[in-house]
Amino acid sequence: MNDLARYQRLTIHPGQISGNQAQLTPEQSHYLRRVLRLQTGDEFIAMDGQGHWWRAQLDAAQTAQLGEVLPIHRELPAPVALLMGIPKGDGMDAIIRQATELGVRQIFPLITERTQVHPHPTRRHRWRKIATEAAEQSWRQWLPEIFPAQPLATAWAEVGAVPKFVCDPSPGVPHLCRVLPAAPQPLAVCIGPEGGWSAGELAWLQANGGQRVSLGRRVLRTVTAPLAALALIGAKWEEHL
Amino acid sequence: MNDLARYQRLTIHPGQISGNQAQLTPEQSHYLRRVLRLQTGDEFIAMDGQGHWWRAQLDAAQTAQLGEVLPIHRELPAPVALLMGIPKGDGMDAIIRQATELGVRQIFPLITERTQVHPHPTRRHRWRKIATEAAEQSWRQWLPEIFPAQPLATAWAEVGAVPKFVCDPSPGVPHLCRVLPAAPQPLAVCIGPEGGWSAGELAWLQANGGQRVSLGRRVLRTVTAPLAALALIGAKWEEHL
Repeated sequence: MNDLARYQRLTIHPGQISGNQAQLTPEQSHYLRRVLRLQTGDEFIAMDGQGHWWRAQLDAAQTAQLGEVLPIHRELPAPVALLMGIPKGDGMDAIIRQATELGVRQIFPLITERTQVHPHPTRRHRWRKIATEAAEQSWRQWLPEIFPAQPLATAWAEVGAVPKFVCDPSPGVPHLCRVLPAAPQPLAVCIGPEGGWSAGELAWLQANGGQRVSLGRRVLRTVTAPLAALALIGAKWEEHL
Repeated sequence: MNDLARYQRLTIHPGQISGNQAQLTPEQSHYLRRVLRLQTGDEFIAMDGQGHWWRAQLDAAQTAQLGEVLPIHRELPAPVALLMGIPKGDGMDAIIRQATELGVRQIFPLITERTQVHPHPTRRHRWRKIATEAAEQSWRQWLPEIFPAQPLATAWAEVGAVPKFVCDPSPGVPHLCRVLPAAPQPLAVCIGPEGGWSAGELAWLQANGGQRVSLGRRVLRTVTAPLAALALIGAKWEEHL
């Protein structure tokens, strides 16, 4: 299994795995046999979304045998959470897909003062499906965790005591790359919705330990800012820029 | 005019400008008066898309008076061209919008071996409209130039004798940030469509002076790669990372 790119990838929940055997759901079995046209004995890559890849072989029953653990190193050196003001329309779909490609580990969709949409709770299902597909496509080892849409203060508490960088395009704010710790450590990036943070939110964020950062001279839309931030964090930590 | 964010921005072609007067098209006049509801004497920001911003004042006729030149510094320190394999669906729309936000100066949509769409020539109209809107929204001084969809070799010749970096996710390829010149200079970034470059294209690109670069450990889709590349170039040149 040298050329991993040749193999199909499928996310299998850790609860489906017992020893070296994975119990497939009817949907997964259908997908492997009918959509991908694999047959009994064919190989694919099983991912548990929690750090592991295995060589897997399709059984006669609705099971797969897990073989060798595959050495994959695609994750950021430390987990990065994204607290993200929900943009209009389907902007959040694109953010979840692309932030997953760029290595995000947790996404907290935020309902802020200037959020104009309050997504139906079922929307989270869709977001998780997008994250799963993106994780498979982009060879992630960890499936990003998608939290329910929630107010800023709730997400702030839930993400815990990690450094939090608040994107703010105001003049004089230092660039993310100047204040990001050189040694990888868990942290959070916080980005407002269209229209940005309100003055009250920005004061609250700073009073609660948020460090304001710039993403450069140009004005980025809310769907572009998280991608720039994640690309810069990856390059700084992995290339030691 | 201290708080520039308060003012509407409108791109006016240099050919419409004579001395301190800009002749508006009927569409521009309609937009200013009917959509934005400006009245005679009201101010807005006029951009020529070639580096200049002016304070402008709406006249009684279909003209605007150009006042002081406004000091804006939003451009990358040197122009960056993007040679971009055309992705499926409306992926190119998102790339043009977001690459404009991130400072691109020229976009060459490429028809490559694995390009599955051959856009109708009228599509370029749409792309230019998207670039114009994005340039206004993101406070660009230069309107990115959108070239017609063309074969790789044609675009390669047209972009001229600048360093060209070819994104290639193969193992062992150096990271863009390691080979990017520290001193800003005109250059081009080349990104393949879904499915990437063919082996023949990759050989041709290298034989013709293209330098292969990685954008990091993670597999990025074709719509995400140009955004990561532009974000990294901006940070390296402007923050001296």
